[in-house]
Amino acid sequence: MLRRLLHHARRRRRYSSAASSSAAGVVPLSTPTFAVFGANTGVGKTLVSAGLSAALLSSPTTSAVDYLKPLQTGYPVDSDARFVFTRAPALLRANPSSPRATRLVASCRTLFPSPAVGADPAHSESQEAVVRCGEEGAEETKVLACRTVYAWREPVSPHLAAEREGMAVTDKEVRDSVGQWLLEGVVEQGEVWKLLETAGGVASPGPSGTLQCDLYRPFRLPAILVGDGRLGGISSTLSAYETLLLRGYDVGAVILEDRALSNDKFLLSYLGKRVCVLVLPQIPQDPSDDLTDWFSESSLAFGLLRNALQSFHSKRIQRLSSMQRKSKELLWWPFTQHDLVPVESVTVIDSRCGENFSAYKIKESTMMLVPQFDACASWWTQGPDSSLQIELARDMGYAAARYGHVMFPENVHEPALRCAELLLGGVGKGWASRVYYSDNGSTAIEIALKMAFRKFCDDHGIQMDNAKSIRNIQLKVLALNGSYHGDTLGAMEAQAPSAYTSFLQQPWYSGRGLFLDPPTVYVKNDTCNLSLPKLMNPDELSSGDSCLSSLAEVFCNTRDTSSAADVYLSYISQKLSEFSLSNNSEHIAALIIEPGKKSASDLLGCLPDIACYAKLMTGGIVPLAATLATEEIFDSFKSDSKLTALLHGHSYTAHAMGCCAAVKAIQWYQDPSINSNLDFEHMRLKELWDGALVQQLSSLPNVERVVSIGTVCVIELKAQGSDAGYASLYARSLIEQLRKDDDIYVRPLGNVIYLMCGPCTARDSCTRQLSKLHRRLCGFN
Amino acid sequence: MLRRLLHHARRRRRYSSAASSSAAGVVPLSTPTFAVFGANTGVGKTLVSAGLSAALLSSPTTSAVDYLKPLQTGYPVDSDARFVFTRAPALLRANPSSPRATRLVASCRTLFPSPAVGADPAHSESQEAVVRCGEEGAEETKVLACRTVYAWREPVSPHLAAEREGMAVTDKEVRDSVGQWLLEGVVEQGEVWKLLETAGGVASPGPSGTLQCDLYRPFRLPAILVGDGRLGGISSTLSAYETLLLRGYDVGAVILEDRALSNDKFLLSYLGKRVCVLVLPQIPQDPSDDLTDWFSESSLAFGLLRNALQSFHSKRIQRLSSMQRKSKELLWWPFTQHDLVPVESVTVIDSRCGENFSAYKIKESTMMLVPQFDACASWWTQGPDSSLQIELARDMGYAAARYGHVMFPENVHEPALRCAELLLGGVGKGWASRVYYSDNGSTAIEIALKMAFRKFCDDHGIQMDNAKSIRNIQLKVLALNGSYHGDTLGAMEAQAPSAYTSFLQQPWYSGRGLFLDPPTVYVKNDTCNLSLPKLMNPDELSSGDSCLSSLAEVFCNTRDTSSAADVYLSYISQKLSEFSLSNNSEHIAALIIEPGKKSASDLLGCLPDIACYAKLMTGGIVPLAATLATEEIFDSFKSDSKLTALLHGHSYTAHAMGCCAAVKAIQWYQDPSINSNLDFEHMRLKELWDGALVQQLSSLPNVERVVSIGTVCVIELKAQGSDAGYASLYARSLIEQLRKDDDIYVRPLGNVIYLMCGPCTARDSCTRQLSKLHRRLCGFN
Repeated sequence: MLRRLLHHARRRRRYSSAASSSAAGVVPLSTPTFAVFGANTGVGKTLVSAGLSAALLSSPTTSAVDYLKPLQTGYPVDSDARFVFTRAPALLRANPSSPRATRLVASCRTLFPSPAVGADPAHSESQEAVVRCGEEGAEETKVLACRTVYAWREPVSPHLAAEREGMAVTDKEVRDSVGQWLLEGVVEQGEVWKLLETAGGVASPGPSGTLQCDLYRPFRLPAILVGDGRLGGISSTLSAYETLLLRGYDVGAVILEDRALSNDKFLLSYLGKRVCVLVLPQIPQDPSDDLTDWFSESSLAFGLLRNALQSFHSKRIQRLSSMQRKSKELLWWPFTQHDLVPVESVTVIDSRCGENFSAYKIKESTMMLVPQFDACASWWTQGPDSSLQIELARDMGYAAARYGHVMFPENVHEPALRCAELLLGGVGKGWASRVYYSDNGSTAIEIALKMAFRKFCDDHGIQMDNAKSIRNIQLKVLALNGSYHGDTLGAMEAQAPSAYTSFLQQPWYSGRGLFLDPPTVYVKNDTCNLSLPKLMNPDELSSGDSCLSSLAEVFCNTRDTSSAADVYLSYISQKLSEFSLSNNSEHIAALIIEPGKKSASDLLGCLPDIACYAKLMTGGIVPLAATLATEEIFDSFKSDSKLTALLHGHSYTAHAMGCCAAVKAIQWYQDPSINSNLDFEHMRLKELWDGALVQQLSSLPNVERVVSIGTVCVIELKAQGSDAGYASLYARSLIEQLRKDDDIYVRPLGNVIYLMCGPCTARDSCTRQLSKLHRRLCGFN
Repeated sequence: MLRRLLHHARRRRRYSSAASSSAAGVVPLSTPTFAVFGANTGVGKTLVSAGLSAALLSSPTTSAVDYLKPLQTGYPVDSDARFVFTRAPALLRANPSSPRATRLVASCRTLFPSPAVGADPAHSESQEAVVRCGEEGAEETKVLACRTVYAWREPVSPHLAAEREGMAVTDKEVRDSVGQWLLEGVVEQGEVWKLLETAGGVASPGPSGTLQCDLYRPFRLPAILVGDGRLGGISSTLSAYETLLLRGYDVGAVILEDRALSNDKFLLSYLGKRVCVLVLPQIPQDPSDDLTDWFSESSLAFGLLRNALQSFHSKRIQRLSSMQRKSKELLWWPFTQHDLVPVESVTVIDSRCGENFSAYKIKESTMMLVPQFDACASWWTQGPDSSLQIELARDMGYAAARYGHVMFPENVHEPALRCAELLLGGVGKGWASRVYYSDNGSTAIEIALKMAFRKFCDDHGIQMDNAKSIRNIQLKVLALNGSYHGDTLGAMEAQAPSAYTSFLQQPWYSGRGLFLDPPTVYVKNDTCNLSLPKLMNPDELSSGDSCLSSLAEVFCNTRDTSSAADVYLSYISQKLSEFSLSNNSEHIAALIIEPGKKSASDLLGCLPDIACYAKLMTGGIVPLAATLATEEIFDSFKSDSKLTALLHGHSYTAHAMGCCAAVKAIQWYQDPSINSNLDFEHMRLKELWDGALVQQLSSLPNVERVVSIGTVCVIELKAQGSDAGYASLYARSLIEQLRKDDDIYVRPLGNVIYLMCGPCTARDSCTRQLSKLHRRLCGFN
């Protein structure tokens, strides 16, 4: 009978295919799951795990508690799983508030003891027990499963133990084991709770050296922080709490031992509004004490902890499950026809970890959080991998605490100055000498326009104090057809008429430019192609336009899309720079990663006068833009009157947080010791999209053409009439499949599908997404 | 001789008048000063202080070390000052690398022992000693001054000791004592170093309960973090480090004891790029050990620490002293004629703490950081007091770590949804149902214009697919003369011609509006006045325009500027709302603090269709804007085509950090338990500018008029011809005096001086600034 029960308890169902394929990060929400973190070592995390497990099992609604200790050192002398396995049932038996007859099926297992432990296999845990408690009567069966995943003998930090005992474990292995544990469901009816106990303090290293708080971050389990009741414990508890916040964790409760210093009272008054604080009686120091009395005194506190966590969990689920509806009611999304977005297709984003969103989904009628690859790079802003994200979070906290926002005109602060130095020494090297900050690409362009106009007037002797002469001057810009410089009116005036500039959208638009048709480079049927605008005579290429001729040469001879793309970009830049205006905000990645070596201007052999940078510049954190200009442009605003100064500025101009993020991000992307996508020799981005796959995609019958360059891979689907163009919904079903079944977050753009990644995204990851897309396209009508 | 020397050593010079008037926060930079923080209790902070003091004194360039322990518990048994006083000389004597003949004049003093200690005055420290060391020869005299400020008997946290022993000490008292200590300079030649040793861990409470890291934050002394070499010490050291970052501290070095766990190695590899990490030999556990051997083994490490700090300090000074020049070379400030800004008048902002900047200044030929009241509220963005700043810093770290940025269309995340709920339930209550996010006031206005145009066309049956009919339609807005909606072209088209819209500034501007002259309310010669525009007939007021009539009534009868201002704002809002457009971004404070009760719309009895919010909405941290609209406006964009959706959006639309900051700030301002400026009964902001002072100002012969409302007090100076208006430099000398001598940071605006504060700024502080201004105006030509 016992054997059958245990077998039953162990028979666990894995959630199927799609979810488990990206296991690291999938978190089922039907199972309340918490991570137990310690403010310090020796604060009694395992006592809390045991006490809480018992309190949970004593609740009529809970059918099972699953306890996991991924990393155990000091084993087998110390085994937190064994402690919970032995103590929780004892406490449950002693608990006066659990009167119902219960048959508790408990197990304790260790999966991977280190060789040093393995030499003494008798100590490796694999225990089972059935415990009865409560009143007489019809028994209810409950399950307590306690597991250790990796165990080392030495009672030191896992990174040291692993080093000394020779069982190295990668972060992926640890995360995979947690991911599997999360996906296991017990067959029994009723509520299953899961507790993951971390090792040491919140920032103690795991076996690879990754900190506890970072190691488990992809799951972002709500935390129970076991605080420190000792002298100095207020400080270590608050600091640990802040470390968890700096990793984006939510803390469900703080619980700590009473050591007669009233640490709990202080923490309650300090943290009270933010998180529930509970206190446990002092833990007996005598090692022979079996803690029965202590547990009995603590049962009230553990009951309160259970209730606090229960309420935390319910509120979380409630909120998550209401967000689709509420967002449809209250928000107004940009570029979105709301009626075309069914409420169930709204993506509820719970968090981001590097390149992945964690999205709330219902799969196989189970609520869960599922990681989705952010394949539109959140509108070209997605730069950070998970390491950079942590760095940026720390920097953002620091910048807010050091500066908040401080105003800029006639002032200087370190982040603004440092960011300017980096921009001028990087993308601006050799030509730019001034940085004008603003908030986004649109405003950066409007500033650039104002600069260009002034310089033009200055150069052409236009007398600006002569109202009559001015009235007849109509200034226009030269720009590309199909280009897009932003949504504010000034930026729009510099783009050709399009869906975005219609009377419907912007009745004040007139289109004050001459708009060129650009040549286009693409792959079709495994062949690279150069498509020239109708009005451009190919015969004149070799003599007339050196850029286009080299474009044709590079592209058609070498099929080197990357070099061709460089030349292509250069062509655009040259055309634009002839008009003293260049919006590089969308190409920031390409430019930044080639510091001073192979920038567009180096390729062209001609330098811009003004250029705009935004988007990825802050590493995908906050809005900030910079308009760089030459000293000649700057000089055209000089006089002894304030009226000739450039009178444009926003309240948050050069805000410290944006500048601080930009400083970190620019340095990060450029550092080959951090960014493995950098080709160190040429200091440029490696090709991230697998060439063979790109060719295969280009040969599909439903694909019109493919363009892959830098962090972008664009696939234009064959479409006719209303199926083509921006307003088309042609690719919608494909988009939905990719989002729903492949966990790739793509955005529709008419009959075009594009994948984007960040400059630090691993090539493997790009290949994985591209393969999924290829598979789907093979099956697309 | 000893007496004379000690007297000499004690004769300290105070920096005079201006600086000391705002002592808390003034930090002289000629004296390298560091704060010693602990990762935990019991990590050996005092050993580090003693060892470092000795290492400093052994350097030929150092003439004195000033050690301060502001808070000591466990006294007199424990006295860290006494420890440094006795041990540093012993170590200096033992140090083989300090061969020069030195006569060390040492002192140890305790200023305020608690009554419990005072009962045993024999233990209160006041010791002096002269110690000779080094080779024979001409002696060099050096000074070691060790002081305890507040001492309690019980060895517990100061907040508990103060509670139990009855010597309560306010934060101001602690800060004042530190401020005085910082301003004391020893007369001797040579370099003086100062060390402030904190109590407990980084986040241990001081006597009032304020955490160590917050208590000393106004000085933002660079930190020496004494790490923890014990098991779990990696975690507590990293968490403590992060807590310091979350308060905006720079950490000069981390130093920790070796406990055979290689914590230092791990920390070095983790923190290596960010901060220098040093290790000390294990501290003898035997209490009878006099540490002579330990100190001798440690002298190398302390020498390295000294060098690291020396280098940190030099780099800091070098950078600070070069920033004025570099900013003049690289930056392009908005609204600034660069040639009118002499390099020495550039304000180098080192940090912000609540309402004060910390600015780098040279006063009496001494470099120092001086707090300056931010009297232009950093262009209407300055909301947080120092408590809110800490909260926001924590939230910013959390938001960056949890979300980074995630894209918005068809998505929802908690901060965006929560912020929308707060806006719609607050300023939008009763009328708005949709929130459209963007980056700043300008873009919010452009979005509002697009909304208004669409609704207008919709309402007037303008067929947008009929190109011919559209061509003849010229849409215009109704707006106020002198209003300013932002710097992008669309926002500018909605403002009347001005210096900002000239051909010189924006050659594409045409001015597509009808612009009204508004009435003006002001105080002159102690009398409230209502000035009506020329074209407005006063006789028609009572019948024709209820708003203006009530304005006249309230204002002229009650002289209640606040109510009159409400009516005045209402008048403007009404005029604007008639045209479905209202830019309230600059009035966000006034509106937010009157949730649902006395908003402009309540007063008017008419509701807007669209309103814009920005600036202070995020609590003065990062750019974010929101355009609120009614459901009718939203509906006019609905169809089954994407082309009719509002096609306007920026990459960082609804970025999580901005939304998160807005959620915190909106709740903070509205919470009367936090914001003491709220009139709880009427849920509105109290009058912050002292009425009597405003009247006095208005009666000065050189003052044209005064307007004080909410967080703003505006003084228009009498000026003629070119002295008046935006381009005037009339007030420049006054501005300079206020900045330089009164430590008020004001910005010029032609012949207008304005003071602004945040919604949480203490009334006392406002009065202080206003008094200073009054004094200066009395002496102004």
